[in-house]
Amino acid sequence: MSRQSNRTADSKKMNSELFTLTYGALVTQLCKDYENDEEVNKQLDKMGYNIGVRLIEDFLARSSIGRCQDFRETADVIAKVAFKMYLGTTPSVTNWSPAGDEFSLILENNPLVDFVELPDNHNTLIYSNLLCGVLRGALEMVQMAVDVRFVQDTLRGDNVTEIRMKFIKRIEENLPAGDE
Amino acid sequence: MSRQSNRTADSKKMNSELFTLTYGALVTQLCKDYENDEEVNKQLDKMGYNIGVRLIEDFLARSSIGRCQDFRETADVIAKVAFKMYLGTTPSVTNWSPAGDEFSLILENNPLVDFVELPDNHNTLIYSNLLCGVLRGALEMVQMAVDVRFVQDTLRGDNVTEIRMKFIKRIEENLPAGDE
Repeated sequence: MSRQSNRTADSKKMNSELFTLTYGALVTQLCKDYENDEEVNKQLDKMGYNIGVRLIEDFLARSSIGRCQDFRETADVIAKVAFKMYLGTTPSVTNWSPAGDEFSLILENNPLVDFVELPDNHNTLIYSNLLCGVLRGALEMVQMAVDVRFVQDTLRGDNVTEIRMKFIKRIEENLPAGDE
Repeated sequence: MSRQSNRTADSKKMNSELFTLTYGALVTQLCKDYENDEEVNKQLDKMGYNIGVRLIEDFLARSSIGRCQDFRETADVIAKVAFKMYLGTTPSVTNWSPAGDEFSLILENNPLVDFVELPDNHNTLIYSNLLCGVLRGALEMVQMAVDVRFVQDTLRGDNVTEIRMKFIKRIEENLPAGDE
């Protein structure tokens, strides 16, 4: 049996609620540890990056997906395969820039924010910012430098959650990458 | 549509790997924040408790399970329904005490420890201790005081992971319970 088959057989499907509450404990801890929301946002992005650079290997093995032909294909794989696999939800891909180098992921349901209300003194907290780091880290490992950020968030009163992704450049294969 | 049906419809099934890596980030953060493993173990248990007291409501709604007749039924529900639901794995229930007030959950596969190796300077860390807190907190909300602790852990070289659960007492319904 190949390694990939092993991984697939080992896959554990779980409901999202324990993850959601554990993520909440992580954000709460960071809010205790750091002075302001901006620092917490940075830490979440950094943690996410370190998760992404490890998660990509699992993703490639589990999904059997090869190199994407273009950024549009990348967008579809992220939305329909990766989000579905690891968060159990499929965002829509919209708002393409004319040049095709930017798009938005619209999440009707963000599983990370079930049960969550932001306290008044954390109104600049980007609660789910870990996801941006995960996407950035994972894509860096497949030689794509991207900028990822939240532009709408239901936690802050927006109707949907919107993650904006911008292609920056292809990374040369021989550059080292790893923990930040 | 009843609330329960709504919750079930909302359920998001996900693979465990993003959760596993996020949990790793939480433990790593706590290891930075606290002086020694014992303090980290305590914090993980406390965080788990606060998660358990919230998760139980979701569990009862989702599983439609009513009051258990005895501790044996409780053990089966924890192993076959709760672990399966939130961690995607089903531990076996064994090693009952003669009085029927203690049993072990044996996890062949603990999804929290995929990808994990304990560094040498953390050999007293109970890495998955959050789970003990979750079980303690959830059971307290259904009026059962239990003692929960790890007695074997594959991370420390044991062949399996074993969580020991001991029934302490029934809690009177009118006692307040909540965040610790």
